[in-house]
Amino acid sequence: MNNVQLVKEKIRSIKDFPIEGIIFRDITTAIKDKEALREMINFLTDKFVNKGIDYVAVVESRGFIFGSALAYNINAGCILIRKPGKLPAETISEEYSLEYGTDKLEIHKDAIEEGKNVIVIDDLLATGGTVAAACRLLKKAGANVKAAGFIIELSDLHGRENLPDDIEVVSMISY
Amino acid sequence: MNNVQLVKEKIRSIKDFPIEGIIFRDITTAIKDKEALREMINFLTDKFVNKGIDYVAVVESRGFIFGSALAYNINAGCILIRKPGKLPAETISEEYSLEYGTDKLEIHKDAIEEGKNVIVIDDLLATGGTVAAACRLLKKAGANVKAAGFIIELSDLHGRENLPDDIEVVSMISY
Repeated sequence: MNNVQLVKEKIRSIKDFPIEGIIFRDITTAIKDKEALREMINFLTDKFVNKGIDYVAVVESRGFIFGSALAYNINAGCILIRKPGKLPAETISEEYSLEYGTDKLEIHKDAIEEGKNVIVIDDLLATGGTVAAACRLLKKAGANVKAAGFIIELSDLHGRENLPDDIEVVSMISY
Repeated sequence: MNNVQLVKEKIRSIKDFPIEGIIFRDITTAIKDKEALREMINFLTDKFVNKGIDYVAVVESRGFIFGSALAYNINAGCILIRKPGKLPAETISEEYSLEYGTDKLEIHKDAIEEGKNVIVIDDLLATGGTVAAACRLLKKAGANVKAAGFIIELSDLHGRENLPDDIEVVSMISY
C-alpha cells in the first residue's frame, strides 16, 4: 500500500454534513492515525523543502494542523490567516464566498515583509474561494505567493481554476 | 540568549485586546519567526518524546499549531478538540467558562480507544478553564490524560490549580 492509499483509507466520508447533499471528507480520522499524519506532513514537506520558502501561510483552522508542522520541517516561519476578530493587532481582510455561504479572512498588516516567498496550506481544496481570498490577502500584504498545498482536492468542483495562474497547486488525494 | 529568551523576545504584548484592561500576549509574531517556531516545538518535543504518548489532543485553534507538529515529532496521533458544530461525526461535549465569557468544547465520540495515553496542548494557560474542560472531555472519551503542555503560562491567574491533580503541567514561558 502506498502512502496515498494509506491516508485515503483513513479519511472518513460523512453524508449530509454540514448540509443535506454534501459528502463531507472527514480528515480527523486520518490526523488521528499516527502513520497517516506522518505521511500527510511528509507529502507536503517533500514538495516544498529546499524551494526557498520564507513563510507557510496557514488557513484557519484545519490548515493550522498541516502548515505549522510543514513550516517546522522546511525551516520556514508560519503566518496565520484567520477568521475576523481573532488577530489582536492591525489587520487587512478579504471577503470570499465558500461552498456553504460567505465569510472573511484576515491577516496581520505587518505579517509579511515585501517580496518574501510564501506558500498557502489548507486541508482541502473545494471551490477554491477560501484559498483564492488567502492569495489575494497575501499579495496585498506584500508576499510573493509561490504555491498552494492541500491534502484533499475535490476535483469535481474545479477549485484549481479559481486560484491564481502563476502559482503551483499541489494536492495529495483527489476525489 | 537561551531558547526561552529567544521566544519571549518574539512574543508581542497588545494592550486592551480583546477587552479593555487585558494585556494580550500575541504569539503570532513568534510563530512567524522560524527560529522561535522551531524552539517552541522543540521545547514540547523534548518534554514528551519517549513517554509512551499515544495521542496529542489539540485545542482549537492555536493549539493546532503546536500540537500537530509535536504529534509528528513524537510519532503520536493527533486528536482535535473543537468548538461546537465543527466536527462532522457524533460528538461528546463539555461546557466551560473562559477569561472573557463561556463556551463549549467537543470531541468525536469515537476519537480515543479506552486507556490510551493522551496529552493536551494549547498555546496559553490562563485561568485553566478551557484545558480543564478538555481534560474532562478526554476522560469521558476514555483517555488516560497524562499531561498538559503550553507555550505561555499567565502565572497570576493560577490556571494550574484548576487542572486535574494527577497530570503533569508544562509551560515554556511564564508571565
